[in-house]
Amino acid sequence: MTTPLDIIVLAAGKGTRMKSRLPKVLQRLAGRPMLGHVLDAAAQLGARRCVVVTGHGAQEVQAVCAEWHAQASAQANQRAGAMQCLTALQQPQLGTGHAAQQALPLLDDGGITLILSGDVPLIQPATLGALAQACGGRRLALLTIDFEDPTGYGRVIRSGESVQAIVEQKDATPAQLAVRECYSGIMAAPTALLRRLLPLLSSDNAQQEFYLTDVVRHAVAAGEAVTALKTADAAQVAGVNSPAQLAALEREAQRRMADALMAQGVRLADPARLDVRGTLECGQDVEIDIGCLFEGHVSLGDGVRIGAHCVIANACIEAGARIHPFTHIDGGAPQGVRVGAGALIGPYARLRPGAQLGADVHIGNFVEVKNSTLAPGAKANHLAYLGDATVGERVNYGAGSITANYDGARKHRTTIGADVHVGSNCVLVAPVTLGAGGTVAAGSVITQDTAPGALAIARGRQSSLPGWQRPAKPSKG
Amino acid sequence: MTTPLDIIVLAAGKGTRMKSRLPKVLQRLAGRPMLGHVLDAAAQLGARRCVVVTGHGAQEVQAVCAEWHAQASAQANQRAGAMQCLTALQQPQLGTGHAAQQALPLLDDGGITLILSGDVPLIQPATLGALAQACGGRRLALLTIDFEDPTGYGRVIRSGESVQAIVEQKDATPAQLAVRECYSGIMAAPTALLRRLLPLLSSDNAQQEFYLTDVVRHAVAAGEAVTALKTADAAQVAGVNSPAQLAALEREAQRRMADALMAQGVRLADPARLDVRGTLECGQDVEIDIGCLFEGHVSLGDGVRIGAHCVIANACIEAGARIHPFTHIDGGAPQGVRVGAGALIGPYARLRPGAQLGADVHIGNFVEVKNSTLAPGAKANHLAYLGDATVGERVNYGAGSITANYDGARKHRTTIGADVHVGSNCVLVAPVTLGAGGTVAAGSVITQDTAPGALAIARGRQSSLPGWQRPAKPSKG
Amino acid sequence: MTTPLDIIVLAAGKGTRMKSRLPKVLQRLAGRPMLGHVLDAAAQLGARRCVVVTGHGAQEVQAVCAEWHAQASAQANQRAGAMQCLTALQQPQLGTGHAAQQALPLLDDGGITLILSGDVPLIQPATLGALAQACGGRRLALLTIDFEDPTGYGRVIRSGESVQAIVEQKDATPAQLAVRECYSGIMAAPTALLRRLLPLLSSDNAQQEFYLTDVVRHAVAAGEAVTALKTADAAQVAGVNSPAQLAALEREAQRRMADALMAQGVRLADPARLDVRGTLECGQDVEIDIGCLFEGHVSLGDGVRIGAHCVIANACIEAGARIHPFTHIDGGAPQGVRVGAGALIGPYARLRPGAQLGADVHIGNFVEVKNSTLAPGAKANHLAYLGDATVGERVNYGAGSITANYDGARKHRTTIGADVHVGSNCVLVAPVTLGAGGTVAAGSVITQDTAPGALAIARGRQSSLPGWQRPAKPSKG
Repeated sequence: MTTPLDIIVLAAGKGTRMKSRLPKVLQRLAGRPMLGHVLDAAAQLGARRCVVVTGHGAQEVQAVCAEWHAQASAQANQRAGAMQCLTALQQPQLGTGHAAQQALPLLDDGGITLILSGDVPLIQPATLGALAQACGGRRLALLTIDFEDPTGYGRVIRSGESVQAIVEQKDATPAQLAVRECYSGIMAAPTALLRRLLPLLSSDNAQQEFYLTDVVRHAVAAGEAVTALKTADAAQVAGVNSPAQLAALEREAQRRMADALMAQGVRLADPARLDVRGTLECGQDVEIDIGCLFEGHVSLGDGVRIGAHCVIANACIEAGARIHPFTHIDGGAPQGVRVGAGALIGPYARLRPGAQLGADVHIGNFVEVKNSTLAPGAKANHLAYLGDATVGERVNYGAGSITANYDGARKHRTTIGADVHVGSNCVLVAPVTLGAGGTVAAGSVITQDTAPGALAIARGRQSSLPGWQRPAKPSKG
Repeated sequence: MTTPLDIIVLAAGKGTRMKSRLPKVLQRLAGRPMLGHVLDAAAQLGARRCVVVTGHGAQEVQAVCAEWHAQASAQANQRAGAMQCLTALQQPQLGTGHAAQQALPLLDDGGITLILSGDVPLIQPATLGALAQACGGRRLALLTIDFEDPTGYGRVIRSGESVQAIVEQKDATPAQLAVRECYSGIMAAPTALLRRLLPLLSSDNAQQEFYLTDVVRHAVAAGEAVTALKTADAAQVAGVNSPAQLAALEREAQRRMADALMAQGVRLADPARLDVRGTLECGQDVEIDIGCLFEGHVSLGDGVRIGAHCVIANACIEAGARIHPFTHIDGGAPQGVRVGAGALIGPYARLRPGAQLGADVHIGNFVEVKNSTLAPGAKANHLAYLGDATVGERVNYGAGSITANYDGARKHRTTIGADVHVGSNCVLVAPVTLGAGGTVAAGSVITQDTAPGALAIARGRQSSLPGWQRPAKPSKG
Repeated sequence: MTTPLDIIVLAAGKGTRMKSRLPKVLQRLAGRPMLGHVLDAAAQLGARRCVVVTGHGAQEVQAVCAEWHAQASAQANQRAGAMQCLTALQQPQLGTGHAAQQALPLLDDGGITLILSGDVPLIQPATLGALAQACGGRRLALLTIDFEDPTGYGRVIRSGESVQAIVEQKDATPAQLAVRECYSGIMAAPTALLRRLLPLLSSDNAQQEFYLTDVVRHAVAAGEAVTALKTADAAQVAGVNSPAQLAALEREAQRRMADALMAQGVRLADPARLDVRGTLECGQDVEIDIGCLFEGHVSLGDGVRIGAHCVIANACIEAGARIHPFTHIDGGAPQGVRVGAGALIGPYARLRPGAQLGADVHIGNFVEVKNSTLAPGAKANHLAYLGDATVGERVNYGAGSITANYDGARKHRTTIGADVHVGSNCVLVAPVTLGAGGTVAAGSVITQDTAPGALAIARGRQSSLPGWQRPAKPSKG
């Protein structure tokens, strides 16, 4: 199709039933504002321009649009031109037709305009593409759906392929009430036609609002063709008006994500207990246990196994690595976390931004790693902290040992050479460098650089007080 | 309604299918004995007196009743008089009618008596109120429900509004078997009428038991009006006879709790993975991630976000605080835990009874806080223990540091002045006070009070043994 | 029944839709290869011999069969003789009939042969027994099931009790398409009959494969009786062809496990959030909270309570022990973990192979125990590591203390006598023995044995530098 596509997204609503300070379209689904999902669908469709109609919380919504646009533009450098994302303020809010009127001046004629809702987040590009095709640059095309129980929805009254009207529940005859095909709130129209029809809308009704659905009546009256494309996928046209609806759609989105992953071969212990908020890229023979949560961009190499109850964000986990239960990885952005091939992580390991682990690294229980590079084969298995450290190959970092990287004002770096063995409960006071092959005796506080191959020791000598009486528990009664 | 209400709760059953040592009515639903839910419903209804009929495990059930009564009385000081809670022992257990006979002597005439079951925990006060109204002080009123499949239940045989009989499955004609309206086990009657009808019951049947349902027959025979109030809510009349039924009702109770929270505006990542055992009070824009469990009384201020897989009991978390995944807060009772506004807690933080955290406090991974007060801005970010401590503003409590609060006999207090910086892997041996603005060098064991602004240091000097040979791994083969 | 039973398991398929390197029958359900479940069912049925037909990934499948056989033989020493498990290689794979042909030479006449599928893992011995009985050593007996929607399945065309044919979807008449009874893929036949029928199969069809279902046609043609046994349990005959089907069957298997546990009296906070991969043996009044995962063999004594989000493998937890949330127990094999009666474990405790905890032991948060024996009443409540240690009665092992059990080459043992009090942040450098009743001062590194009753101390003396200036944060701007 060569007709250019433009988009209007209705995003002015308050969402009273959400009972939130946040504008409704910024409520998060799968970790991102609902509006972002709609903009993505529009962009994937190859739309030329998108006008988001703002109202309640306009500034916040505009900021999200601007951010979306900046990111899309940045990514578009490698591809064809990105969709342009503009906003139009609807003030006051006088209905959906009035909203569309605010957007129209920003769109050029000669294209097709799709009107979407910022609170209908699961709409898919393929469905929108089919709707644009149904429009064909000549017709008003409505996206519709058959509901088992259509109560409350506007019924689509057809004569064969042509739509005659959208009739609201309260205005419908008994025969019309029996119609199960309902309007989804999404339409496509030649932009020039919209420009002719929108000014005809009136607010002469009980709510004193301009209804976008009235364009159907005006189009029919003007002899314009109106068609309808029926979708069978209720989730794609489901709107969100309450936390309960948001939660239900979140589950649906997660179910679809799980299905897509399984279709690629990912083995999920329980698809109903996987949450992906962002993108999860998986190699072959990846296994994910119960209760795991992924955020941002995560990639899992071939044969990676993720244990139960892990939370993983912005991380690249390479082939064969094994993540044990209760592991928390948060790579933040832009640093990220990298876990090398064959590494063993957890349980109860925490990897923070800038943790870069080589192949076969072991990070065990109650160990925190932040902004540190560990060369292949390094191990920190128990109760330890590595921050701002560079750790050489095969280093054994003892239980309870800590890099004191913060002097109260600045962070300093710890460098540990290859094959160093750091004993238990040591403190390495940064900046400090431990020479390769050296040993740090248990319980030492290291404040000066150590020589390669040396034993560094910094602790008291053991002495004994015989017959020492510990404080006694007061005898009872 | 001015007719006084009294309550009989049947609570003598053993619950053989529970296969438990615990009497059935003490099995826990949403964290509390089922009987407690029933007593609460009765009390919320404004009942005057409640007689719990005990039998199996009578002592344990009586103890729970006494505790319930004590708590209700304590709370009632601020309100109108509390419901009085008595018990009557049924020994031996000769059926539901026999059970009601034990309770009746403890009730005064001139009121309405509702007969409830201790193993039907989700009954709601509004339903009971409507049943009392249907009774009206003049009629026997049965709570009934239409079942899709009524097999096994006693059918309610009506003639218009009047009930003619309850017919058991085995005694029913084919026409009666087709009736879907069943008796719920809950009834209301003028107390004086019950006092006339109960003595008429006989145990002349296969089970040799006195059936409470027989009062319907006797009432009809005596020309008394019998009416029925139908509920549409199966969960309210669902009884628990097995662990599977208990689990099913637990899920139903949790679903209702989640729905109620969402209706208030709380955003739940997955309503099916929230568990609330007690009361959860939420401000605006509260978000709760997957797999969280709340116990006792928890309040969450505006904008609080609870991460995945947190367990939180008896805590007050103030506005804007953020609780990261895998956090375990248990305030116990009566101390509780307080988390100040804007605080950051977790992941893997454990707050125990008496943890009182000021605004913007940070408690990080693998940190335990017990019976300690932290002033605003204090931080303990890694692998630390704070017990019986008073921590000043902006204190930085280093990784791996520990308050040695227990001398084997008694707990002692540690006091840390404002702006103190405690290095890594320190031990503060209580009782001890660190002067404001001071510093404790990493690895120090502090046994004496430190001066304000001073550097306290207690560790060995670093030395080096060049060319030190670590034990070598035996060569293989 | 005295007719000997033999088994053929079809296990040669690749399982393309699994998109896995693993042969399909080795995909895991409830923690074990699907093939293992089928072999178990066959063995529980009392089968004499089982021939697994391998193809794709034959070596891996053979290895699993050999391992299964070795374990079954080992266990069979205490019982009657175990089922013999052989394999037959099908190379190339020319269909299910061809597969059965490879197995038949390994079976003796005079018995009944059941033909199972390695990717139909939930089949139960009772169902197979009933099918063998339907065969009766004289008939070909098909296991069938009525599907609501039979589309795609082979329809079973009956004349009364006798089966006339299995008709594939594409070959069926409209009347045949309306038949809802479908063939499950499982059959039983006299071995001698199979030996006559299998050679009659031909690959003269679109797929050029030998179809096992064609034996029905040949049997009918030869005047042999063909019967069908209908099961109502779809899960027992459900095959796995994709990760989504595997996940669905995993959930079904887990639901059945949860139901069985509840029927025994186990109280589950949410049956849909329990995962058992192996065997879970429970005493009376066991309670298991949400999100728990059990692997290998776990036994829980009377009154044991498992908190939320625990992962427990290969452990014996004795009566009254309480496991707090986020506990990770992995006993491995063969060592296992033992938790004594009344012990308190967690939250965030990790017990590793060889942890042997006596009665009333307390293991608290962020504590790891490995290959260590703790006598009754010993406590390690905070942030500690116990590896290769023997700990006496009532020992109090301080927060942050660590056994340095690894010298870089070998593991050494730490022995702590009864009633020893180890202070906070100590290191016990193994091999070392602490005499009974002694005390180790906080922060000490103990490298030499200590005398009973003595205070051992090994740390620096505290000194003070007044007016010490910490590095200052650079002033901003």
